[in-house]
Amino acid sequence: MAEFSIDRFVDRYAARAAGMTASEVRALFAVASRPEVISLAGGMPFVQALPEEQVTAIARTVLEEHGDVALQYGGGQGSIGLRERLVMLMAEEDVNADPDDVVVTAGAQQALDLVGKLFIDPGDVIAVEAPAYVGALTAFGAYQPRFLPIEIDDDGMLVEQLEQALLRGERPTFVYTVPNFGNPAGVTMSADRRRQLVALCREASIPIVEDNPYGLLRFEGEPEPCLRTLDPENVIYLGTVSKTFSPGVRVGWALAEQSVVQRLVLAKEAADLCSSNLTMLMTEHWFSDEARWRGTLTGLVDTYRSRRDVMLDALEEHLATEATWTHPGGGFYVWVTVPDWLDTKALLAAAVERQVAYVPGTAFYPDGRGANQMRLAFCYPTEDRIRDGISLLGALLHDEAELYRSLGG
Amino acid sequence: MAEFSIDRFVDRYAARAAGMTASEVRALFAVASRPEVISLAGGMPFVQALPEEQVTAIARTVLEEHGDVALQYGGGQGSIGLRERLVMLMAEEDVNADPDDVVVTAGAQQALDLVGKLFIDPGDVIAVEAPAYVGALTAFGAYQPRFLPIEIDDDGMLVEQLEQALLRGERPTFVYTVPNFGNPAGVTMSADRRRQLVALCREASIPIVEDNPYGLLRFEGEPEPCLRTLDPENVIYLGTVSKTFSPGVRVGWALAEQSVVQRLVLAKEAADLCSSNLTMLMTEHWFSDEARWRGTLTGLVDTYRSRRDVMLDALEEHLATEATWTHPGGGFYVWVTVPDWLDTKALLAAAVERQVAYVPGTAFYPDGRGANQMRLAFCYPTEDRIRDGISLLGALLHDEAELYRSLGG
Repeated sequence: MAEFSIDRFVDRYAARAAGMTASEVRALFAVASRPEVISLAGGMPFVQALPEEQVTAIARTVLEEHGDVALQYGGGQGSIGLRERLVMLMAEEDVNADPDDVVVTAGAQQALDLVGKLFIDPGDVIAVEAPAYVGALTAFGAYQPRFLPIEIDDDGMLVEQLEQALLRGERPTFVYTVPNFGNPAGVTMSADRRRQLVALCREASIPIVEDNPYGLLRFEGEPEPCLRTLDPENVIYLGTVSKTFSPGVRVGWALAEQSVVQRLVLAKEAADLCSSNLTMLMTEHWFSDEARWRGTLTGLVDTYRSRRDVMLDALEEHLATEATWTHPGGGFYVWVTVPDWLDTKALLAAAVERQVAYVPGTAFYPDGRGANQMRLAFCYPTEDRIRDGISLLGALLHDEAELYRSLGG
Repeated sequence: MAEFSIDRFVDRYAARAAGMTASEVRALFAVASRPEVISLAGGMPFVQALPEEQVTAIARTVLEEHGDVALQYGGGQGSIGLRERLVMLMAEEDVNADPDDVVVTAGAQQALDLVGKLFIDPGDVIAVEAPAYVGALTAFGAYQPRFLPIEIDDDGMLVEQLEQALLRGERPTFVYTVPNFGNPAGVTMSADRRRQLVALCREASIPIVEDNPYGLLRFEGEPEPCLRTLDPENVIYLGTVSKTFSPGVRVGWALAEQSVVQRLVLAKEAADLCSSNLTMLMTEHWFSDEARWRGTLTGLVDTYRSRRDVMLDALEEHLATEATWTHPGGGFYVWVTVPDWLDTKALLAAAVERQVAYVPGTAFYPDGRGANQMRLAFCYPTEDRIRDGISLLGALLHDEAELYRSLGG
């Protein structure tokens, strides 16, 4: 745990703040952000692919034609024009929605926080994939739940494990999942598992929170049905434009039934009054020109697919003897498992020393697992940098393996 | 309480969600937003005064010169360039600050939420002015405190009441105050009261949360020292550019000591990862041109001063026999007290019917007080609309008084 300065407020913090500790790898990531380090850590979209001139033109149009609105406070639910566009985006994945059932949030991250605030009492059980999106663990974690980790394989969540837990008497307040090209594992829940999960949760009256940031970043094959489509009544669906447009506009959303929507709006207003009218209007305009947004998205998907291919090839070339990894059909991430005797957290300093960075696996588990795993992101670095980074990582793992064997391991 | 739809999630909400209920006047405010209604309710800044062309030029510059940054994720603390500008703004009010001690938030509202999240355990006592900013009551309220209302007079918080409460054994987790041109009462804490409050809280080891959205909107006279200046170690200071620039950029901040800052950054990242790089860069650029921002602010202050004068004159003309009110030296609000037999909440429907709207006083108390009070905002409507609105309100109160007397009241 990182050190905090001597603290005259130390007796004043709420119990929930005890869990708010700086990650031990935080300082290392500051080093890893230097340009000479090839970072396979951060999940930053490749915003350089956005047509800068057109985004600038949108900003100009919004400010010139709607300046008084753009620079003013907005409503807590978000503008209706934007919500209509978000409904259109969801229809791309066959999710049927009414704009009245959508709440605009500051990225899907704020939706996670508001859902946590609305549903989690201290001690409540929240079922999550293991590994799970670290931002969900921290957002929910602030409300002091107990996490119930459900393991995954190449077909996503092992629903049978959840079923066993329910039979043991666990009563999760909700189940949280990233079913498409998940973060960090890059795997996608199979159609069978989806139907199994939805049926189980409906029978047990356990809501599902479906987080789908990557669904439209599909590299190949056919999409699986969204959980929300399989059971609209029991699934709260979260989306974001951070990956299809820009994280700089901070636009995400929650789709839920009216009773939940009304409470989410109140929670949103308590949290920050409203999102930015300026960036909401820009987002609405971006998604109003179908040729433009589709063209840009297709270009992004092509770029990410190539980078994924390069990363998988490089892994095959440099890490085949030391590691196994997932084969994502979309999204941003490859999940790598190394031998048990390696500790990826301890190894990170040496990796950064060799000018390559990743995220240690432990970050993605609520229970300390994952020391022999790491997340690699292929979304941001160029293909050359990915090749070089994986090569550096391979050399490091080889050297570690040699050292281990030389010590009689 | 407004009705929620029939709710299959009703058994699932957290205890803290029980307090998240739609205000009973919410539906009325939807009606009041129609253009034919003169709204003296909303605290919307007069953003029409912003030089639209220059704001547009800033957006263009930011996107053309820093597009890759503007459209990308940012850091949880907010960009250093913006934090330096915010330090400059605080220096305008003699608040001495280091950019490292500043956390950028989505308006000051998010700072209130994060402070609440960090400090408030259920049942904790939070001392607030009575009346207090309604957004603080809802932000803190989500963390289930017990509020300790401290009354105010024309010199701000009656610090003696707080002292009495401490002597009775109350131990507030913190004291929350808007000392300059407060919302809703429009009064300013006197220098003596400030020194008294700071000394009392220091002695009792109770942190102060000083919320200062309106300090730079001073119409006359000399500023009082900020509480933060009087005791930098024991005061968490909150600011916003919503009133000096634009609420549409959603930029506020907290200034605190490092131990608090580090936790606020973690809480911010859990809440929404980061603020918008685009709007942070725009805000930084806005406050980089001194002649521009000072000129615009002077113009805004002149406009608000004239509107305040018009409202006070109109109140004198139309409400002198029915009401008393505060005389704000800055900010957005006049606080009106009507006879005890009137209920401003019950009266709002009739007011909206006559095409004028205000905020009933009960919204600003945690304990149901304020039925004979109302908040009037002079920030947004034109002078003519303010005159007409107060005239309509005066006629309504006269008619109510006549009815009351005719019924033998």
